[in-house]
Amino acid sequence: MSISTIEHEFSTPHPIDASSKQVLNGVNVTAVNELIENVQTEPELAKSKFHIKNSWITCGQNQSRVESFYGAKQENPYEIPFTLNADEPPLLAGHGKDANPVEHLLHALASCVTTTLVYHAAVRGIKIEKLESEVQGDLDIRGFLGVSNEVRRGYKNIRINFKVKTDEKNIEELKALSKLSPVFDVTSNGTNVEVNIEKIEK
Amino acid sequence: MSISTIEHEFSTPHPIDASSKQVLNGVNVTAVNELIENVQTEPELAKSKFHIKNSWITCGQNQSRVESFYGAKQENPYEIPFTLNADEPPLLAGHGKDANPVEHLLHALASCVTTTLVYHAAVRGIKIEKLESEVQGDLDIRGFLGVSNEVRRGYKNIRINFKVKTDEKNIEELKALSKLSPVFDVTSNGTNVEVNIEKIEK
Repeated sequence: MSISTIEHEFSTPHPIDASSKQVLNGVNVTAVNELIENVQTEPELAKSKFHIKNSWITCGQNQSRVESFYGAKQENPYEIPFTLNADEPPLLAGHGKDANPVEHLLHALASCVTTTLVYHAAVRGIKIEKLESEVQGDLDIRGFLGVSNEVRRGYKNIRINFKVKTDEKNIEELKALSKLSPVFDVTSNGTNVEVNIEKIEK
Repeated sequence: MSISTIEHEFSTPHPIDASSKQVLNGVNVTAVNELIENVQTEPELAKSKFHIKNSWITCGQNQSRVESFYGAKQENPYEIPFTLNADEPPLLAGHGKDANPVEHLLHALASCVTTTLVYHAAVRGIKIEKLESEVQGDLDIRGFLGVSNEVRRGYKNIRINFKVKTDEKNIEELKALSKLSPVFDVTSNGTNVEVNIEKIEK
């Protein structure tokens, strides 16, 4: 799996004043710049492992727990663990109690590109006043249902349309910055996914 | 973007008795078999479009709304729309109010493979009594922070470890069936992702 060509259309971060706490777009720019400096000095701090536990309930219903993540050379517990739910709509034989997995994927993508834009804009002195997006994905469920070998299982195309309130001059740079999003990278380029299944007795 | 080689290690669905409603793993097998028949007869029914709207709040906080999806030749509203939240942990300059985007991606993947296993097992007469998973993803945040061109932005590797309570003889077939998952396909193979950014005044 190759990494996509890395683009350099965006500028480097430029803190306005590194001596005091700077906040832009709600982002503590001083903290982000410190984080950047720290991982440059000590790359081991950047090595992270995110992880969840999922439990099947019934039919299309299942639930994930997010309790902690590894980063900065230690496990970091969340103050309150998060619970994420999934179901399928009635049309797909589910109970329609929660968003379905392919909708959760669109949320992961929208939220990741949004945060990427907001953070990287902040450290470059770009003010964002408003940021909204619509994400659409085209999926032919014959792939999932296994009825056609000609149809892929996942999304054939995904489109993200952002509307942003900022200076006109920032638009092109924001487009370039969106490519720094980790979920954009995985959904665009794919990655190594290993699936293991073990039998348990209890 | 090519579709990965499609494997045929799994059997074809075999409803036990198509004349009455059959339920296995909580799945209405009759309904799923009807869905399969319908999309085989009329492929247009299978063309789906999933979509969400995301709104940025501040810093790493943003929220998606899931209100409806297109499938079976019509827009299908959910009875109650779903709200999905995201944030970043304090270590990554966020407020730690919700799971972060790369954790949401792991949830999308776990929930999709889980549902794929449960549904496809059901239509093949495979009883699953319990199904749990742990998903881990390795990510070097130097990619996201834009400090190294040698480091990819997204997950380098993702591992899903399932524990399943079922007959031993089903394990290999379940491994093959996991490949039918739409989110497994996208995270493994990538897809076309188009990002548009438009300036708004208000």
